[in-house]
Amino acid sequence: MKWAFDFLANSEIVIHDPKETKGRWKEILNSDIVHIEIGTGKGDYWIQMSQMYPQYGWIGIEKNESVAALAVRKSEELTKNRRFIYGDAAEIDTWFDQGEIDVIHLNFSDPWPKNRTSKRRLSHASFLEKYKYILHENGQIQMKTDNSSLFEFSILQFQENGFTLKEFSVDFRREVHEEDAISEYESKFMEKGNPIYRAVWILK
Amino acid sequence: MKWAFDFLANSEIVIHDPKETKGRWKEILNSDIVHIEIGTGKGDYWIQMSQMYPQYGWIGIEKNESVAALAVRKSEELTKNRRFIYGDAAEIDTWFDQGEIDVIHLNFSDPWPKNRTSKRRLSHASFLEKYKYILHENGQIQMKTDNSSLFEFSILQFQENGFTLKEFSVDFRREVHEEDAISEYESKFMEKGNPIYRAVWILK
Repeated sequence: MKWAFDFLANSEIVIHDPKETKGRWKEILNSDIVHIEIGTGKGDYWIQMSQMYPQYGWIGIEKNESVAALAVRKSEELTKNRRFIYGDAAEIDTWFDQGEIDVIHLNFSDPWPKNRTSKRRLSHASFLEKYKYILHENGQIQMKTDNSSLFEFSILQFQENGFTLKEFSVDFRREVHEEDAISEYESKFMEKGNPIYRAVWILK
Repeated sequence: MKWAFDFLANSEIVIHDPKETKGRWKEILNSDIVHIEIGTGKGDYWIQMSQMYPQYGWIGIEKNESVAALAVRKSEELTKNRRFIYGDAAEIDTWFDQGEIDVIHLNFSDPWPKNRTSKRRLSHASFLEKYKYILHENGQIQMKTDNSSLFEFSILQFQENGFTLKEFSVDFRREVHEEDAISEYESKFMEKGNPIYRAVWILK
């Protein structure tokens, strides 16, 4: 859509050529700790978390043009610790240098339920290889989802690809977690009483 | 209770001194493959599975005297492939020789919800060490539970103690699994619409 294209093209928050920024993200974000969210959707989580943790840098990534534009529009003002990439995470290792990222967030990613589309899931082995490259040796990956099949697939994929499960919950919102923002999308599932699955992996 | 004590003492299916049988279970059960269920409760699963898979040996284990007697009474006739141990699984490595067991089943084990009782959970590290000893190198452990906290604890304990997750489901009965018996206990949870969590681990 034209408005979305124009909006993204003119936003100061959007990094238009992230390859040019490779290796310089800490400097740009004014932080030694860089979080990325792959698949921001409309941006609730990325924006809220960057407000809750202003001491960290927060990069939102989304490949759907309209949704990306909505996220950026919500974000509005340029802040020191927040940037956005409109692009496909398959290119993630061209945007970030080895070990440059501290935490990767995957929230309610598209489950791509059909077997023949499993390669598109953000927890497929081909993505995990790229995450390994960009993650700091003490880094971690945090996943939340309401989709049981995607969660099952992810738990096995991460294990088979050398990650270690550090935290694991089949009903994350059973307890209050004020440290973790709740997007509009997540709150809809919570209202229905659906469990939120969550896992955190580290590299070693 | 006296009836339970007498019943167990006089049953031919009960192995009264399992230490004496160490290393000879395949012979006694007429099978090269030996399954054990730790915590049979009233015995539904152990009995049904031994009927569904008569080619394997099936040993039921239960430490609660009354419940053990109910399980044995249900079992009734002596069969070639079924035996029972009334005893505490903490002694399991004195009953079975190294590598003597092919599959360990843990079904709806007591969750021992308080932290100070976590050592009693059948997936606590101290039990896992014993399972490692009695399991064949190609053996596996299968767990089902309706208890989310026990499941979360177990997934992390098994990983930390060198097991590999092979199968993993947060809603096992979402699909039909005719290969796996459903106890009265499990069917009650299914009727309520509660998810059944399941995992299978191997040693390497």
